[in-house]
This record gives sequence, structure tokens and C-alpha cells, in this order.
Amino acid sequence: MTKFVRITDVGPRDGLQNQATILTPEQRGKIIAGLVDAGVPNIEVGSFVSPKAVPAMAGVADIYQQLPAGKAYYQALIPNEKGYQLAKTAGAKAVMMVVCATETMNQKNVRLSVNDGLKQARDIISQGKQDGIDVICCIAVAWECPFEGKTDNQQVINMASYLDEAGAKEIILADTIGAATPEAVAHLVEKVASSVSIKKLACHFHDTRAMGLANVYAALQVGIRKFDAALGGLGGCPFAPGATGNVATEDVVMMLHQMGYDTGINLEDLMKVSNLAGEMVGQDIGGRADKWRQLQLEKGLPLV
Amino acid sequence: MTKFVRITDVGPRDGLQNQATILTPEQRGKIIAGLVDAGVPNIEVGSFVSPKAVPAMAGVADIYQQLPAGKAYYQALIPNEKGYQLAKTAGAKAVMMVVCATETMNQKNVRLSVNDGLKQARDIISQGKQDGIDVICCIAVAWECPFEGKTDNQQVINMASYLDEAGAKEIILADTIGAATPEAVAHLVEKVASSVSIKKLACHFHDTRAMGLANVYAALQVGIRKFDAALGGLGGCPFAPGATGNVATEDVVMMLHQMGYDTGINLEDLMKVSNLAGEMVGQDIGGRADKWRQLQLEKGLPLV
Repeated sequence: MTKFVRITDVGPRDGLQNQATILTPEQRGKIIAGLVDAGVPNIEVGSFVSPKAVPAMAGVADIYQQLPAGKAYYQALIPNEKGYQLAKTAGAKAVMMVVCATETMNQKNVRLSVNDGLKQARDIISQGKQDGIDVICCIAVAWECPFEGKTDNQQVINMASYLDEAGAKEIILADTIGAATPEAVAHLVEKVASSVSIKKLACHFHDTRAMGLANVYAALQVGIRKFDAALGGLGGCPFAPGATGNVATEDVVMMLHQMGYDTGINLEDLMKVSNLAGEMVGQDIGGRADKWRQLQLEKGLPLV
Repeated sequence: MTKFVRITDVGPRDGLQNQATILTPEQRGKIIAGLVDAGVPNIEVGSFVSPKAVPAMAGVADIYQQLPAGKAYYQALIPNEKGYQLAKTAGAKAVMMVVCATETMNQKNVRLSVNDGLKQARDIISQGKQDGIDVICCIAVAWECPFEGKTDNQQVINMASYLDEAGAKEIILADTIGAATPEAVAHLVEKVASSVSIKKLACHFHDTRAMGLANVYAALQVGIRKFDAALGGLGGCPFAPGATGNVATEDVVMMLHQMGYDTGINLEDLMKVSNLAGEMVGQDIGGRADKWRQLQLEKGLPLV
């Protein structure tokens, strides 16, 4: 197994979409530029969704105009065909689509049944192939759904196989609400990997119950080398800072580097962007790697 | 492998010893009683150290008078022979001694070389056998030392073998500063377990860099079934709450229960004690399991 682990920072999308403070496209562009400078190879730059529904994601087409070309792999979330067309017009070369693994969640998310969501993804993958646009698919609530409880493993396996056969560039297994345990992560990933190449799979964790890094470690052990994370642990409910955010990119990177994995990311530079984003949203964000670093500096101790 | 995992809550000792707010023996007794009621099987109730050096641990003998007899296994830290005699006089049936794995750290901790620390432990173990007092030994900075950097694995293996042969009741491998990674945890535990029975080994982690639960999971995978933890993640520097505390008992218990392990602990009751301790020290402590629970209750969502 390679010692390289690819991180996709989803902070500019999953991290910022629910924040109480709405950032301008210029501010979000600055965060993205900082991530690029820190060496983050893949960045989810925003969503092509209705600015009325999600004001925090307004102006993503403007962001595409600012992206440092050729410096990173940029992707954006699209909810449907309309979003795909907007992304294409903006010049996106990669889009990410979510299909939830439970009926209730997929209805709430995109007002489609799971099957219709899968078919929509297949049609857009097919369109993407004609246009030279990568289509990444995310299976949300892959372990647990806030409405239906534990997700059926077989459902996720079937969805992953379907999306794989349809030609998805990558398939992300997402613990959307931060309810997975490391044992459940290892179990599901191994099952999915029996029909879909592990190289095509990525994992997306939230640190809701402190198991974020444990889940990353569990996935790593069974061969996953692609992870989503958000700078500063951004994400989740703006009324409970830190409670339900994505796993913090700096925490994931610190753990990976300390275990001898390479991410291509400069941790010090990453923490600077994380602090910048925290100032912009007016919150004390930052993974614990960052807090630890501040503490070491205050004590005059080395940043081992 | 059994599905029972034994938790020792070290909150009343490791958690409270560095807090800015000093609790009375009565207050600490209330926390201990709450832990007992929550079903915590093992509790580190305090330290028999100089009250001048560690004012927060003053009056531990008084605490022994309040302990609900026969309801849990109680242990107390002792630094030396004098502490042993104080513990014996107070009626302690189990004591815990720390030997640091690096010279600098052991000198700073007890002003002894590592070898002299080991010999002192051996003598006290021998004394304990005559008195019917269990002597548990903790190898501190087992993975990394704040002064000497990475700890030599062989040193820890040798120390564990020495303490095992000397008759230590249990040997705790402690990541005192929260610097271990899950891979390093698995690696060292497997090496130590090649000469010491895994049933005699326990692990003690701090959540400094967000890897607390990842380290618990890694240790669990290689057979460890005994863990230290502190209610509310208490511990560490009072000037950086949450930054360097012990791994929170409620987070460990939540992960274990969700993975099908039994701890004998009632999580809801545990969180109540954690909240009580937080009120007493005047800090917003609590593991993320607790914060997640509050969030679920606020949203009217189930506590799955």
C-alpha cells in the first residue's frame, strides 16, 4: 500500500454552507488560495445550488474565476442537472453529487427517491463523460441516518456498485452525521471494496462524537487512501461550534504525518489558513492539532 | 476475546490534580460516589502526595472514609514508600505507582533515575504482597517524552517485564502527553505483550491531539481490555481547557458501547457526574459524547 494519502478539503463547501456568518466569494477565494498554498491537492470549492436556499454558497461561479489554475484539483457540489449546467458554464472540470442511502434523507436532501437519485447520478456521469467533466459521487448517511437509524450495509454496497458501473470517478462513503464507529467503518469499507476497487473509494467523517480520527485510522487500515476533511473542523451547526463539524484537516494531516504518511500538505501553512477562516467566520475554530501547537508555543516547547 | 472492557476513571486524581479550582475532599467524594452509581468499576480516588506540592489532592485519607465500600475497586497514586504508608494507614487496598520511561521525566517526577524508580516499585510491590495491597504500575511517557522526544520501545518493554516479574498487579502504558499515534500504540502494545500477558496490561491516553479514541481503538484491536479515562476529559493544563485532558470517559464508553462492548457503565448517569464535576471546577468540561447528547436533546432527536 502506498504511503500517500490524498486529502480533499471540503471546508469551503461543507464547512461554510451552514455557518452563521456568510462569507463573500472573495473571502472564500482567499481561503481556497490558502489551501492551495498549503499544498492541499483537492478542494471542494462550493456548491452550484440556489443562492436562496443556501446563501452561503452564492457566487460560486465567481470563485471559479479566481482559482489558481493547475495548482489543485477543484470540485463543486451539484444537486442536479441544473447545477451540472451551472458548473459546466463556470468552467468546472469536476463535480460532486450526493445520493443519500436512506429514502427519508434523500427526499429531504433532493426530493428524490434513492433510485431516482441514482439514475440522476448515472445520467450526469454519462453527460460528464461527453463534456470531459469528472463526476464524483458521495453516498451520504452510509452508516447511520438521523431519521431511519442504522443504514443497511447491503444498500450501500449496491449503491456503490451501481455508481461504479455507471462510471463515477470516485465514490465517497460519508458518515454525514458523525455516528459511525471505527469497527463499523472497517466493516462497511471492506464489504464495499469487495465489489468496487479500493482506489476508487474515499471516506468522509464528521467528528461529532470524538471518533473522527479513530474512523480515519480504521479506514486507513482497510486500505482507504482518500479522505475528505475540513480546515479547522468547520461544518455542522453554527449554534454548537465544534460539536458536529467535519473532521479537521489539520488533525487528519498531523496524525497521518506522524504515522509516516505523505499528504503533500504543509501543516504549519494549513493552520494559518485555518486561523484565517476562523477569523472570517468569527469563531474559535481549529482542530486540536492547532490548539496543541498554540499551547506548545506558549510553553516554549518544540513542535515535534 | 471478551467483549468486556474495564474502565478505570482517573478523573478524581489525574483529572483534578491540575485544575485551577481546588475541590474539597467532600466534593471529590461526591464525584466518586457519582462514578460508583454510574457503574464505573475502578476509580483512582486521589494521590498520597504532599498537600503542599499538590494542594488539589489534600485530604485523600478523608476521601477513603467516605468511599462506598465494596461498590468499586479503589486505587490511589503513591509516589514513594512514604505515600505507601499513608495509603496503608488510610485503608487503601490498591495503590498505583508511576515510573517514567525517560531519565529526564522520572527525575522531574520523583527525583529518581529510571532504575531507582523501578527498584522502588519492586520493593513496594513486595511490601504490598505482605500487606495484602495491590500495586499497579504505570509506565509514563511510554511513547514520547516532552524532554527527550520519542521513547525507546525496548526501554518500555524491559520496564514492563521487570515490573511484571516483580509482581505488579497491572501495568499501565501511559501516553502522558498525548503524543502517541494509533499505529505507534498498536506497535508498542504488541511488543510489550510478547513478554507480558495482555490481560495484565492497560492503556492510558490523553486527547491532546484528537487521537484519544483512535488510540483506544488501536489498543483494543491488539487485545487491550483495560483503559484509564477521566470523566469529562478532565486533566491537563487549567489554562487551556480541553487541550490536554485525559480521554473523556463518556467518549470512550460511548464508542465501546456502540461497538458492542460492555463496560458495566450507564452512560446517562456518567454524563450527569461529568456535568456535576464541570460545575464544581467551574469549567465547561465534558466529552464530545456529552455535547452531542445536549445537541440531540435541543433538536428533539433521539439519543441513539
